[in-house]
Amino acid sequence: MEIKVVRQIMEWNEDVSQAVKDQLKEKKVCMINVMGSPGAGKTSLILKLIEKLRNIYRIGVIEGDIAGQIDAETMEKQGIPCVQLQTQGACHIEAMSIQHILPMFDLDDLDIIFVENIGNLVCPAEFDIGEAFRIAVLSVPEGDDKVAKYPLMFSTSQALVMHKYDMLPYFDFDDKRVEEDTLDINPHAQIFRVSSRKGDGVDELVEWVKASIQTA
Amino acid sequence: MEIKVVRQIMEWNEDVSQAVKDQLKEKKVCMINVMGSPGAGKTSLILKLIEKLRNIYRIGVIEGDIAGQIDAETMEKQGIPCVQLQTQGACHIEAMSIQHILPMFDLDDLDIIFVENIGNLVCPAEFDIGEAFRIAVLSVPEGDDKVAKYPLMFSTSQALVMHKYDMLPYFDFDDKRVEEDTLDINPHAQIFRVSSRKGDGVDELVEWVKASIQTA
Repeated sequence: MEIKVVRQIMEWNEDVSQAVKDQLKEKKVCMINVMGSPGAGKTSLILKLIEKLRNIYRIGVIEGDIAGQIDAETMEKQGIPCVQLQTQGACHIEAMSIQHILPMFDLDDLDIIFVENIGNLVCPAEFDIGEAFRIAVLSVPEGDDKVAKYPLMFSTSQALVMHKYDMLPYFDFDDKRVEEDTLDINPHAQIFRVSSRKGDGVDELVEWVKASIQTA
Repeated sequence: MEIKVVRQIMEWNEDVSQAVKDQLKEKKVCMINVMGSPGAGKTSLILKLIEKLRNIYRIGVIEGDIAGQIDAETMEKQGIPCVQLQTQGACHIEAMSIQHILPMFDLDDLDIIFVENIGNLVCPAEFDIGEAFRIAVLSVPEGDDKVAKYPLMFSTSQALVMHKYDMLPYFDFDDKRVEEDTLDINPHAQIFRVSSRKGDGVDELVEWVKASIQTA
């Protein structure tokens, strides 16, 4: 299967996020924007979710990266329809690139699109790409001060995944502090403690995703 | 000691990095730009370097953050002159903010200024803030594909620190791959394997910093 590689459109001048939302709604496709730092484990989390959801839903992926197609190759190996979006240096994804990519999928044949945003705790949060909801991923090794230091992403996401949670014994990471900091700025946030590697906490997150898709 | 908090100037229209460089050169102050992901351990690395260098050099710190002053408070507790730069959402530091901050230090009384840039593998690398040199920090938990995925920072830094190196047994992290990827795009990069927590590799980095300051 050949990987489609798309370069981000840089000459946008309008926010087309609402048009993207409308198109996805019409096609009954739920788009989930997965955001977090480089190395938070976004790819492995998406793979784990797909593993658990693919017997019920038809799933596609948009992999956002500055350069390269490492993650798209990983998805293709699993037989998951995937488009690689290369932002060519840009630190976030914008809705116009998503609009450009959607026709490359057969939307009638999809229920969910996961978008793996650029690894960055800052800029991606500023841009509505037309998603139904956002999952923020914060891994234990990153430290428990990240919600306080980078509030926008955590205040605009419906779910927070504390990831690589099996690493808790090896790091000074106060998960209660992260939970409190998040609920302070985002009282309705759903908070999950997940290890994609060990599988802990994945089922709870999967149940929440299923419920959220119903209401999206 | 009261922490000086500065909000980033947003209405710049010129690159003043050369003017910053000239000013620092005249005052014989070496400014070191420390960059990396959120949670790569930039603060703990800078603290460790200061611990080893402060008996020889007079050191100040500029802490760049989106919001808050957590790291500046840490520095102040150690008795290190520190200015907190709040970028108010911006994902990187620019030279004009540094120019604005420098008069807050007594430059005649400093040899080194460490700048802790915003936790972000992307945007900070695009901006010369007037530094003498750059240290890129990549922590083991982030994964060994980060040089390939975020090349600019690693290609423009004089040194790469593979940080939290004591965590190597717990993660799938091929440090040879990181070294090769870095040298491919940056053949003169100096590469260090460091655990600030355990102290391993710190002395080698300190020696390199000392030598670099002489030639800066």
